[in-house]
Amino acid sequence: MNLQFLIDQIKEKKSYLCVGLDTSIEKIPAHLQISADPVFEFNKKIIDATKDYCVAYKINTAFYESNGVKGWETMAKTVDYIPLSHFKIADAKRGDIGNTSSQYAKAFFETLPFDAITVVPYMGFDSIQPFLEYKNKFTIVLGLTSNKGSEDFQQQKINDHYLYEMVLKKVSAWGSKENLMFVVGATKANDLASIRKIIPDNFLLIPGIGAQGGSLQDVSKYGMNKECGLLVNASRAIIYASNKNVFAEEAGKVAQQYQTEMKKYI
Amino acid sequence: MNLQFLIDQIKEKKSYLCVGLDTSIEKIPAHLQISADPVFEFNKKIIDATKDYCVAYKINTAFYESNGVKGWETMAKTVDYIPLSHFKIADAKRGDIGNTSSQYAKAFFETLPFDAITVVPYMGFDSIQPFLEYKNKFTIVLGLTSNKGSEDFQQQKINDHYLYEMVLKKVSAWGSKENLMFVVGATKANDLASIRKIIPDNFLLIPGIGAQGGSLQDVSKYGMNKECGLLVNASRAIIYASNKNVFAEEAGKVAQQYQTEMKKYI
Repeated sequence: MNLQFLIDQIKEKKSYLCVGLDTSIEKIPAHLQISADPVFEFNKKIIDATKDYCVAYKINTAFYESNGVKGWETMAKTVDYIPLSHFKIADAKRGDIGNTSSQYAKAFFETLPFDAITVVPYMGFDSIQPFLEYKNKFTIVLGLTSNKGSEDFQQQKINDHYLYEMVLKKVSAWGSKENLMFVVGATKANDLASIRKIIPDNFLLIPGIGAQGGSLQDVSKYGMNKECGLLVNASRAIIYASNKNVFAEEAGKVAQQYQTEMKKYI
Repeated sequence: MNLQFLIDQIKEKKSYLCVGLDTSIEKIPAHLQISADPVFEFNKKIIDATKDYCVAYKINTAFYESNGVKGWETMAKTVDYIPLSHFKIADAKRGDIGNTSSQYAKAFFETLPFDAITVVPYMGFDSIQPFLEYKNKFTIVLGLTSNKGSEDFQQQKINDHYLYEMVLKKVSAWGSKENLMFVVGATKANDLASIRKIIPDNFLLIPGIGAQGGSLQDVSKYGMNKECGLLVNASRAIIYASNKNVFAEEAGKVAQQYQTEMKKYI
């Protein structure tokens, strides 16, 4: 998917919502547990119920890998089930030396048909560059994450700037808004204004709304640019809205609530 | 596996060699390509030929994931095939917010029977802690990597110390030598002396020997501690020693050469 298509989808739907499929088998409603692949059955129903209100889905690879080979099968089936109109993110937090990152890029951009993958910047340029070589695919590099541990290294100062600011500045020069996005946690909404000075043009993937406590209003106020420039993710708040038979309808309602609020800001 | 068992294996075999199974299907000898799972057939023969000379195997997950579900099957079969006497490392470079890192820990410590996993420190304490909770399992945190890109962030200065030094110091306080090791690239052998001042007790996983150009002599001189404290990895130099029918024998010979050299240093 190219950037313009994503922007057109956002404008058409008046939504910049990403639904996070962090599906844990323990949290799936009881009536689905008898199916051959309960996580896939759950994901299908969640996708059907939310697709009109979101423009992207984010698959958190950890929740599939914990189920081993069967989990990877579920992930492959899920990404295939997501409509072509939707931006498909592998939230995989990968990154390694060049010849290894090339294999990860192949895994998520070729073998599995994702549009984007999250990547960790710790190993520097040659760990990120193999992902950037793909046309119409997006590398979403971690900037400032939404967890408490972001204080340990990301918020340490190098000269007069935080490490995460250095990451944003340096990495943004390695690509363009056509192939590079950044993760910025929603719990740090006030920092978004200064982050936008460093990277005015790149899309931001914002986790931390909902279960992690971030505010959609603040994120939109400080983070939006003229092309919207935001994909706001909610996972648990949507997919676990209910654990009853009506889980999908309830998930759809929560997604619609986000979309209704987004319409005001866009 | 607990630390004492690993140390005993090192003493008994007079080897601290780790063989890296970064197996790429394109590089496998032609006569294996007709098998149902060429990568597994290759790995089995490499393991049989090298197991007497090494104490650990490192599976680079990227090379399996690039083959999708089938690749994960191959990885699962390979880790099952490695003898119980050998330390099994998932070189997976994972790490995410706490509830997600817990899923990765489950994936590699429970669903797959690895003894250790490599983890990226960028997201801080709560991204690493879920791995450390497992008894007799090891979290191998990236310190200073062997690639050129390590200059971009790891070798930037925070106050008077490099970021990687801060990582080593801070992370080493979160665990002990019984559950925590660090990755330090062999191409930086001269830095090992100062690294040993920060983390005298933890084992170091040293990639970068062989194809990446690091010297075993220098690494051993500057990095060893009284319990050995080193796992030196070679991947391509061993597993691709030959692409003929005799590839396994040739791999065994190269592994033996490393072990013969290691005997002098231990």
